Amino acid sequence: MLLEFTKMHGLGNDFVVIDLVRQRAYLDSLTIQRMADRHFGIGFDQLLMIEPPEDPTVDFKYRIFNADGSEVEQCGNGVRCFARFVYEHQLTYKTKIRVQTKSGIVEPELGANGWVRVNMGEPKFSPEQIPFVADDVQALYPLQLKDLEIKVDVVNMGNPHAVILVDDVLKANVAVIGPQVESHVRFPERVNAGFLQVISRNQARLRVYERGVGETLACGTGACAAVVSGIRRGLLDNNVNIELAGGMLNIAWQEGDVVWMTGPTAKVYDGRFDLKYFQG
Amino acid sequence: MLLEFTKMHGLGNDFVVIDLVRQRAYLDSLTIQRMADRHFGIGFDQLLMIEPPEDPTVDFKYRIFNADGSEVEQCGNGVRCFARFVYEHQLTYKTKIRVQTKSGIVEPELGANGWVRVNMGEPKFSPEQIPFVADDVQALYPLQLKDLEIKVDVVNMGNPHAVILVDDVLKANVAVIGPQVESHVRFPERVNAGFLQVISRNQARLRVYERGVGETLACGTGACAAVVSGIRRGLLDNNVNIELAGGMLNIAWQEGDVVWMTGPTAKVYDGRFDLKYFQG
Repeated sequence: MLLEFTKMHGLGNDFVVIDLVRQRAYLDSLTIQRMADRHFGIGFDQLLMIEPPEDPTVDFKYRIFNADGSEVEQCGNGVRCFARFVYEHQLTYKTKIRVQTKSGIVEPELGANGWVRVNMGEPKFSPEQIPFVADDVQALYPLQLKDLEIKVDVVNMGNPHAVILVDDVLKANVAVIGPQVESHVRFPERVNAGFLQVISRNQARLRVYERGVGETLACGTGACAAVVSGIRRGLLDNNVNIELAGGMLNIAWQEGDVVWMTGPTAKVYDGRFDLKYFQG
Repeated sequence: MLLEFTKMHGLGNDFVVIDLVRQRAYLDSLTIQRMADRHFGIGFDQLLMIEPPEDPTVDFKYRIFNADGSEVEQCGNGVRCFARFVYEHQLTYKTKIRVQTKSGIVEPELGANGWVRVNMGEPKFSPEQIPFVADDVQALYPLQLKDLEIKVDVVNMGNPHAVILVDDVLKANVAVIGPQVESHVRFPERVNAGFLQVISRNQARLRVYERGVGETLACGTGACAAVVSGIRRGLLDNNVNIELAGGMLNIAWQEGDVVWMTGPTAKVYDGRFDLKYFQG
């Protein structure tokens, strides 16, 4: 059976997007792993599957799978690519889309030049919402690593984030500190570790060690968590351009409100594969 | 301008194959680099461009480009994928194809199940043909590395190879020895470094540190060079199954004759991209 797909990326975070509204297929975990292989397969960071909604108040359901075949809750770069895909493939004529994800409803809105603005929902901060093991609620939590103690801010943006303030992201020891934070016992579901450098009140830089993946070119929810953390620490204003290795995002947030993320998308190519190649 | 392509692999050595017989396009070095990027582009080890022949005695011309945009002479896994591509895309009805490459004429022959047999030409051994700096012709050359001296056999299969005999490929220190051999001053055009383990007279294992690339899943010309070297050392018979990380090849050779390589191909998907996306 032939399946059509589109390869897209948001800041270098790359996706295979499959329309399962017009096409019908079942892709199991092993099939997804084989598709994800960059030499033997198609290659992607995440697979985005677009499905008809279960909830009649939304336009689509969309599911996100990592390269290891596991389903994940949320992907900030993915939802922008999702929105551009459904509009350009004429699955909808709306430019503001309500979509159901594993972590709740998200509302991407199409702008000019393939940029998409996304309501990323309200950040959550209490330890049990992260989840994070802590005796009481604090602005910053000391976290004991192997050879040093660091301070982290914890934010849930549909997925868990720890934000570490650094003087220079380029000099931050992401390869060593990242994995220690990511799998720290106080994060029972592990955590994405963000290294945030504040440049001015509306400009910042970020590197993210992603849960189960390692350092990536750009983590959309990580950018939201980092800017929210910078605003709560009194270091950033409410509208921030944040530079990641793969490019720039704009994040806007006010205390008590939802986070707005605006960023680019790119379509790389359209493809067609025979499902049995990956099932074999 | 939209261009069609096919993603294929031979033992995990992966290719974007573009038919420039029916389609017309000019891809410069920077465009190829952008296409090769596995996150922002399509992703491949090599790009194979199929063109009409200049020489009327051959069926096609085909050119091979590395991910850095540089043109290379020969690719053993690529020529198998090339042959399957031109046959399945009905650019020819011949099952035995004569094709002009940068390093001479190659003659792939289609077999069953996507396997292809290729006349890889005669191996060359004299130092100036490798090229390799040596005072006289020897069966094995001592080669001084940083901390140790090793013995290498040198073979040119359209591209230069150094073959090192080891007891166990899994234990061979390819990451350290590979780059030292690859860029040794005695190989003025650098060299592919192969680590060969003989299992029986018709079975061997190989790992290859490829020139300008690093260790790869499978190097077709490296497998030819390694088996030729093993036969000349008196360790292997004339028909050998050689196991690489990406899968198995069969190599047949007799002194004074051409090398025959038989191996698998796989088609992963068909794609279509807009050239201007990669032209920036």
